[in-house]
Amino acid sequence: MNIDAVNRMDQATFVATFGNIFEHSPWVAERAYDMRPFADQHALHAAMVAAVKGAGRDEQLTLLRAHPDLAGKEARAGTMTASSVVEQASAALDRLSAEEIARIGRLNAAYRARHGFPFIIAVRHYTKVGILYEFERRADSDTSLEFAAALQQVFAITGMRIAARFEAMPTPATAAEPVQA
Amino acid sequence: MNIDAVNRMDQATFVATFGNIFEHSPWVAERAYDMRPFADQHALHAAMVAAVKGAGRDEQLTLLRAHPDLAGKEARAGTMTASSVVEQASAALDRLSAEEIARIGRLNAAYRARHGFPFIIAVRHYTKVGILYEFERRADSDTSLEFAAALQQVFAITGMRIAARFEAMPTPATAAEPVQA
Repeated sequence: MNIDAVNRMDQATFVATFGNIFEHSPWVAERAYDMRPFADQHALHAAMVAAVKGAGRDEQLTLLRAHPDLAGKEARAGTMTASSVVEQASAALDRLSAEEIARIGRLNAAYRARHGFPFIIAVRHYTKVGILYEFERRADSDTSLEFAAALQQVFAITGMRIAARFEAMPTPATAAEPVQA
Repeated sequence: MNIDAVNRMDQATFVATFGNIFEHSPWVAERAYDMRPFADQHALHAAMVAAVKGAGRDEQLTLLRAHPDLAGKEARAGTMTASSVVEQASAALDRLSAEEIARIGRLNAAYRARHGFPFIIAVRHYTKVGILYEFERRADSDTSLEFAAALQQVFAITGMRIAARFEAMPTPATAAEPVQA
């Protein structure tokens, strides 16, 4: 996939392609569509980030709440999005000891009770030790700081999702497109 | 090593043992010594953290500036502390491509120019992708936020250094010590 193909999409195709970049929140792609054309995948991501930043706090909170718990009941029930499954597996969160599962369960409950949304972290950026350290630290943080930190993590996660989407999808060869060096 | 042995140390022995936990900053151990006895290694670390938090901003800045650049000229010259060598190797920062070295060199320069101290990160908490992402993000952050973030990373690094010190040093067996279950 290249950015020219993206810029040629009608809105339905665009939302079908990118509506799941932000977890269970196709409205982000719907609003970003109006910011075409995009110079590259980073500009596409920046448009989606701008759509979230421009949304109201209630919509932002709904976006945060659309995320699964880390190694939580959705992971065990097999009901997470495909992206979340792959991401949590990357930090070996699908292969935890019973003790680690119990500790993360307590942290998930404490974090949600304090902040009102789940703990969100770009797991590909952290080691397992780092994830647990950040979980403890952020569970004790101020909610106003944590709200901004959680959105920041969502932006990191979605940037990687877009990059993976661009790598994974075939670029249709057409005679009209210039050859790239 | 156990905490009872630490609590029995005179100040010279204590500083010889823990003076290098905070990079090139034995004054942290000197001040923490007065907060004995420590219940465990976490209490020892908390005392050192309290010594740093209670120091003036100039001393805190000097502490931050005592850290080496990430994958920088001290790493190449072999003049980093043993702790920093092991830590940077843990994230494969001793095995970078020429392109990665050039990118990190630019980031080190930009970060120092903006904030006035080197980029400090608990490398054992992050993947290489995460370190580079945080480097870009924090190089653009406000210096007041970054000063607090850098100290937070120092506290994370030094907590792991103390844990490693307790694991590595032999516990002297003496008849006077109670048997631990």
